[in-house]
Amino acid sequence: MTDVILVLNVGSSSVKFAAYDVRDPESPPPLRGSFERVGQTPQFSVKAGPSAESFGAISADDGHAALIERLIPWLEAALEGGTIIAAGHRIVHGGRDYAQPVVIDNDICRKLETLVPLAPRHQPENLAGVRAVAVARPDLPQVACFDTAFHRTQPRIAQLFAIPRALTDEGIIRYGFHGLSYEYIASVLPSHAGNDAHGRVIVAHLGHGASLCAMREGKSVATSMGFTALDGLVMGKRPGALDPGVVLHLMQDKGMSVEEVAKLLYTGSGLLGVSQLSSDMRDLLDSDDERAREAVDLFVYRAACEIGALAAVLGGIDALVFTAGIGENAPEIRARICEASRWLGLELDPVANKAGASQITKDPSPASAWMIPTDEERIMARYTLKTLHGTLETDRLLAI
Amino acid sequence: MTDVILVLNVGSSSVKFAAYDVRDPESPPPLRGSFERVGQTPQFSVKAGPSAESFGAISADDGHAALIERLIPWLEAALEGGTIIAAGHRIVHGGRDYAQPVVIDNDICRKLETLVPLAPRHQPENLAGVRAVAVARPDLPQVACFDTAFHRTQPRIAQLFAIPRALTDEGIIRYGFHGLSYEYIASVLPSHAGNDAHGRVIVAHLGHGASLCAMREGKSVATSMGFTALDGLVMGKRPGALDPGVVLHLMQDKGMSVEEVAKLLYTGSGLLGVSQLSSDMRDLLDSDDERAREAVDLFVYRAACEIGALAAVLGGIDALVFTAGIGENAPEIRARICEASRWLGLELDPVANKAGASQITKDPSPASAWMIPTDEERIMARYTLKTLHGTLETDRLLAI
Repeated sequence: MTDVILVLNVGSSSVKFAAYDVRDPESPPPLRGSFERVGQTPQFSVKAGPSAESFGAISADDGHAALIERLIPWLEAALEGGTIIAAGHRIVHGGRDYAQPVVIDNDICRKLETLVPLAPRHQPENLAGVRAVAVARPDLPQVACFDTAFHRTQPRIAQLFAIPRALTDEGIIRYGFHGLSYEYIASVLPSHAGNDAHGRVIVAHLGHGASLCAMREGKSVATSMGFTALDGLVMGKRPGALDPGVVLHLMQDKGMSVEEVAKLLYTGSGLLGVSQLSSDMRDLLDSDDERAREAVDLFVYRAACEIGALAAVLGGIDALVFTAGIGENAPEIRARICEASRWLGLELDPVANKAGASQITKDPSPASAWMIPTDEERIMARYTLKTLHGTLETDRLLAI
Repeated sequence: MTDVILVLNVGSSSVKFAAYDVRDPESPPPLRGSFERVGQTPQFSVKAGPSAESFGAISADDGHAALIERLIPWLEAALEGGTIIAAGHRIVHGGRDYAQPVVIDNDICRKLETLVPLAPRHQPENLAGVRAVAVARPDLPQVACFDTAFHRTQPRIAQLFAIPRALTDEGIIRYGFHGLSYEYIASVLPSHAGNDAHGRVIVAHLGHGASLCAMREGKSVATSMGFTALDGLVMGKRPGALDPGVVLHLMQDKGMSVEEVAKLLYTGSGLLGVSQLSSDMRDLLDSDDERAREAVDLFVYRAACEIGALAAVLGGIDALVFTAGIGENAPEIRARICEASRWLGLELDPVANKAGASQITKDPSPASAWMIPTDEERIMARYTLKTLHGTLETDRLLAI
């Protein structure tokens, strides 16, 4: 068969993988799938490749590492003579040093470990994935693709908090996240939006985590997410922007420990906290419960406010792009955010929006809005190939 | 002489007072002044009334209460036969229950004590002022005028954080502050801006504390300040909007106590934290230091972003009003915020702005900008009279 680039996106309870043909990396990956509910009762699903059954039994004890160590030979068997020639990983936090993907060695792995406190819910699993691949295939070159890297083009002023300078100097800045998703959208937007893609663009990555990115000429100039993944938009379980005085109050006046507050903010807030029903937008849109309605209202209200804040950075907008789970699959949310942002020149086309068209505003409209599925794995595959170019056996790399 | 309404604005290190003629409450107050640096080396200055020297010696031991207890007889002596017939107080926090001023009794005083945790740096001094007046004049009716009250007209959605519903229900909401200032501006704006005053208005109260208020028809619909006075705009010593994850990080990873973090956020951040030079905008504008420039840049950048967020709530703006210390006295800051908000239709008139004119945009301009001095004391005097109307000796109240 063929040689492939394997990309892995290891989350707190999931492992997503996709393998791209090195001779034709822009085509759909011949192998693709995911393990979900890892740590509880793992479930394996394959979207492209052999049947999931051929993987064999999975037990509740199989953690991220064990599953990845078994995944590699299973994938290689499926390649029928081909092999995995490199692996690319989504690493949520690259700190200030990594504005580009990097080939992972022991030194870099140690540096990335030091960033765990900045992304305690994501970074450890990301790095566990790197180590598991190294156990299965010690020879395999591995590349780290960072969710923060795309935002390092921002002007310094957009990355600052108004806190003591010494804390800024030691790295308490607005890193921003979802960079791989934004970079993918930036790469395909010109083919949808033409000239608007090079202008004042806001991309709304609305998934279980959610953020906005303001771009000019396809580069990040500001984002709604801050130092951690808590800030900005309302999310499934996280609050988004929150008065820091609330954190102080919960500890000083309600006697909560910092761990209890962290748990509350990472797992009990957002859509779940407001609705007390579900962190899943689909559930809330289907519900008649008043609390579900309020959670959705707040999601839309806060999104419109944050779009206004980023429009101020850009001086107005030429295009607004919706992507990720909610952005791609919830026309009602897209419609409501567009209506709330009508003052920015967006004139919704309700029929196109409902039909899942790419352009969801009338044409012409002073500013355009779009629904574009994101593809973080493809960006990772591209980056892995590009970063390793010249170091891989060249006869295997026909077309980069 | 005349009978007066005394209004007191008791801050952490100051006591400001003004006494308004009950027969002519809209005229300049015949007695007005302040104690500054209370708690350190108190200094008394009189802007209207007898010489400060006539007050007698002040020692470093004279706290807020002692000074107010002496102030009352000194004022009454100055009234030459007139008397103080009521006192109005600025009370920073009225919680959810007080959307209007209220005559203070023991029950209400106890209720307001329970709000101290929500405004630990202001509420205790405010209430100490009430008690000091009661000591000096137990018979005097006193009225609480709340900085939060003006915002209680906001839609519920504007007051919510995306946190667990139980916390919202117990009062962790976006209260907003500077309400007396906003209410004063709302009361005088029609005489400046005509019809624009009834439209989509953002008021920028830029003082040592700073916030924005979005108004429609002169009523608050949203504000940049949240649960405490930490949120929103960059301030002299406070950070404004800050990822709650930063608070967690300072404790979990840097080992700071919650008290240390609170001190850092209330007294070491904002303009002071970024510049490491001064919390006073005047000092920073006069400085050649690169850090001072960055602090000012960040102040302007964040103000423009928050204006964008509130413009989203309003669907664009008809008027932007600058007020309070920086807003009234720093034409450079007004100019820079207007330039950053030009996309909203503001066309600055640099000459008018520099000259300290009321209207600082060209006429016509798609949206107008204004500089209007605030007068919280006057609103308090009006409210005190109105709240006590019918309960005071009516022959003393000629014209309300």
